[in-house]
Amino acid sequence: MLFPYVGLSEGSKLLVAPMDGSHWLSMKILVMELSARGHEVVVLVPENSLLIKGSQTFTTVIYKVPYTKEELDGKFNELRKGVFSPPKFSDLMTNVERLVNFTTMQVKGCEYMLNNKELMDQLRGEGFDAMLSDPFIPCGSVLAHMFSIPAVYFLNGLPCQLDFRANQCPSPPSYIPIFYSGNTDKMNFLQRAKNFILYNIESYVCTVMYASFDDLVSRYISEDMTYQKLLGEGAIWLLRNDFTFQWPRPIMPNMVFIGGINCVTTKPLPADLEEFVEGSGDDGFIVFTMGSMVSDMPLKTATFFFEAFRQIPQRVLWRYEGKVPENAPKNVKLLKWLPQNDLLAHPKARLFMTHGGTHGIYEGICHGRDNVHRMTARGVAEQLLIFDLSTEAIATAVKKIITDKSYKEKMQTLSSLHHDRPVPPLDLAVFWTEFVMRHKGADHLRVAAHDLNWIQYFCLDVLAFLTLIVVTVIGITVKCCLFCTRKCCGRGTAVKKKQA
Amino acid sequence: MLFPYVGLSEGSKLLVAPMDGSHWLSMKILVMELSARGHEVVVLVPENSLLIKGSQTFTTVIYKVPYTKEELDGKFNELRKGVFSPPKFSDLMTNVERLVNFTTMQVKGCEYMLNNKELMDQLRGEGFDAMLSDPFIPCGSVLAHMFSIPAVYFLNGLPCQLDFRANQCPSPPSYIPIFYSGNTDKMNFLQRAKNFILYNIESYVCTVMYASFDDLVSRYISEDMTYQKLLGEGAIWLLRNDFTFQWPRPIMPNMVFIGGINCVTTKPLPADLEEFVEGSGDDGFIVFTMGSMVSDMPLKTATFFFEAFRQIPQRVLWRYEGKVPENAPKNVKLLKWLPQNDLLAHPKARLFMTHGGTHGIYEGICHGRDNVHRMTARGVAEQLLIFDLSTEAIATAVKKIITDKSYKEKMQTLSSLHHDRPVPPLDLAVFWTEFVMRHKGADHLRVAAHDLNWIQYFCLDVLAFLTLIVVTVIGITVKCCLFCTRKCCGRGTAVKKKQA
Repeated sequence: MLFPYVGLSEGSKLLVAPMDGSHWLSMKILVMELSARGHEVVVLVPENSLLIKGSQTFTTVIYKVPYTKEELDGKFNELRKGVFSPPKFSDLMTNVERLVNFTTMQVKGCEYMLNNKELMDQLRGEGFDAMLSDPFIPCGSVLAHMFSIPAVYFLNGLPCQLDFRANQCPSPPSYIPIFYSGNTDKMNFLQRAKNFILYNIESYVCTVMYASFDDLVSRYISEDMTYQKLLGEGAIWLLRNDFTFQWPRPIMPNMVFIGGINCVTTKPLPADLEEFVEGSGDDGFIVFTMGSMVSDMPLKTATFFFEAFRQIPQRVLWRYEGKVPENAPKNVKLLKWLPQNDLLAHPKARLFMTHGGTHGIYEGICHGRDNVHRMTARGVAEQLLIFDLSTEAIATAVKKIITDKSYKEKMQTLSSLHHDRPVPPLDLAVFWTEFVMRHKGADHLRVAAHDLNWIQYFCLDVLAFLTLIVVTVIGITVKCCLFCTRKCCGRGTAVKKKQA
Repeated sequence: MLFPYVGLSEGSKLLVAPMDGSHWLSMKILVMELSARGHEVVVLVPENSLLIKGSQTFTTVIYKVPYTKEELDGKFNELRKGVFSPPKFSDLMTNVERLVNFTTMQVKGCEYMLNNKELMDQLRGEGFDAMLSDPFIPCGSVLAHMFSIPAVYFLNGLPCQLDFRANQCPSPPSYIPIFYSGNTDKMNFLQRAKNFILYNIESYVCTVMYASFDDLVSRYISEDMTYQKLLGEGAIWLLRNDFTFQWPRPIMPNMVFIGGINCVTTKPLPADLEEFVEGSGDDGFIVFTMGSMVSDMPLKTATFFFEAFRQIPQRVLWRYEGKVPENAPKNVKLLKWLPQNDLLAHPKARLFMTHGGTHGIYEGICHGRDNVHRMTARGVAEQLLIFDLSTEAIATAVKKIITDKSYKEKMQTLSSLHHDRPVPPLDLAVFWTEFVMRHKGADHLRVAAHDLNWIQYFCLDVLAFLTLIVVTVIGITVKCCLFCTRKCCGRGTAVKKKQA
């Protein structure tokens, strides 16, 4: 069997610090599986949350937070505002501010919990074997450090590549495109120059973005602790990613790629949906969703989609709760919620229209369907900008992808590569979480670079030392030569004088 | 099951270019398994070889070489000469020369094959799906390139870290100890300085060491091709290593760690050996071998061992074919060949004495026994220098390791970590070799750094460009300022003059 030592960690105790929102949907899959395998799993849930709810298969500990559900929803709605307007530089800053506002609220909740001495004592007393945490907020990392238990991180990636930075993973800007730079891994000179500049700007943005996290960890752990340093203590990084989607790059021994973990076994569709998609005939149907967190859009934008869908023979299943224009086309079915994974697995599914969130992207890859935001570079998708739409643009793109077979073929190649792994992603995530519980960490995978500062890491002190030696040797040699020359010349002159 | 797509690659055709000597012993395990799984495996064997022999489970193609078995053995014996004398710098150069002589001979054999037009045409016509090659000699890489088939490399590591260099894997000298530097991954300032200097020397040694390989590939492929560049085309690197032995370091997505692949299932011992080890009682026995290639040593050195073994209660199984002193102790049994793996798995085995070759080391880890050369830093072994021995030193070290329980405990920890992997190493090696045959390579794991030269890789051109811009801007600004100042001052002076 896959896990030769499974008996040793059965019945281990795991503390879970999730991040609210769609992140939780993936982590929940792992949490459910670990519970099913007989581990005692305790999930920390803020009393006001967006998506985290209790379950019969795991224990929840609900902690008080200093904000109401309305305040939380308000901040979250603010965050969504940015989506439908074109990205200007001022907007970028506003969006960063909104994101910081949203996470700051969660950090406040976290702090409220850390100050709850009674709860802290209770948790410490439980003697957990490990912490499973979403490092998008610092709560789990702080608790793991405070309770001296190893941390397993579960994430898609962190802003500013903080995950790679914290884990001491080299990221040469010459072929690793900076997020949002629009570059691929193959860059010409100017693209590389842009990437290089953005790489350095990113380092600065990082310090601004994580200032409140740094402040928190320095207050609760020690003054010289930063969030990056704290993250560096992580034993295993479970990354919801793989190299059919991410550009190939250096990795570290404690990084485990579990992209596609949310492609669970598909269930049959509900009767009404089955009837609708079966009725689509040879033309098939389209799945359209903007992710778990956005279910409406301005009427003007929505109308572009409705009119475009009117022009195509396919049926459309759209997760939409917004306003519906009069005489909306008959081939469109609007739903509050879509069984996305099951729909994409259906043989009549022709196209996947999505906002490009990672859940959507992975489910797209899993079932070999088309249209995924960052996948355009791989020739498997077309990108439409939500703030720059027209009925014409939507209809053209949809028709192009459905008629041009190359999109489907390329996506099928990616899909076959994505599936062809020695261990399914959920099993891999379970294995490494259990590994950390069995061995109280994964120290043998931890690089010694964590003990070096950046001057030592790049051997700048050694370079300075060697330069000093070389300069000294040259200096002494030159002095000696000058001295000898002066002696010789001096004597020469004296002799000449005598002769004269 | 583990391999969801297994049907697709069943019956694929694999060409194998092994390296003669102990390297072949590990590769053979994978070759046998692939044959057993229904693939057509063709192994290229030089007519005169040390250890490669035919088998009923795979096809061998025997090619002519321009040297006799005696010449080959002669060069190999020369190579062994260096082992029993202390390493002086002049010896180091002699040893490098001997190694180069030995590989040069194999390269000549390879060249003889490449010139065999009939054989080449026959092999090309076979339509192989992939090449499995030991990159210690360049034959397999050249053939893979010539036949346009993807290469899977099977190795423990290459001199000069050429494997990491060719695969574009970052190796910061600040925490990755250079081979033979005596450093671990935790270095103080002076050790780091030494490591940094050796790192740069190594880069130079590389060019000397691989000169004949570079010459070969430039003649058979293209003038600007080097061996390093050619190796960079490898699809998957199967490394007989893992992080219980190797220091943790950055890795690449196409590196697969299969350390321990030679820890096959153990068989019962032959009757005479079983009787001998069972008779050792509670004291147990010691396994002593200098690897598959060295079975004797100078009588003086051997006597130290015999005398030391006389002082201990354990029985000793020693792979030794050299001269035996009179009245050799009774607790020592000399053998031409040892079933090393089976002996180490025996519950009465107490100590493993070995030269530190990788086969020995892995088998030591596999079965939780002690004493492995490079493992001293991990507190699981003691090191004895073969050219600086005494009966006293041997006896002391043996007694210390057997009585001090910490060695055994630490080795058991390493052993449990080593075994605790999601997929057994042989299955993993099979999976990735089949993967390459199924998908005609593993391009999605190949980093774009391969397309960059080192100036581009380190963005030195971008830095130069940005510096130029900054200097130009500063230059123009200064000029402007000077011009303005002169104008102003000039006018000022003029005014003053007028006033005067």
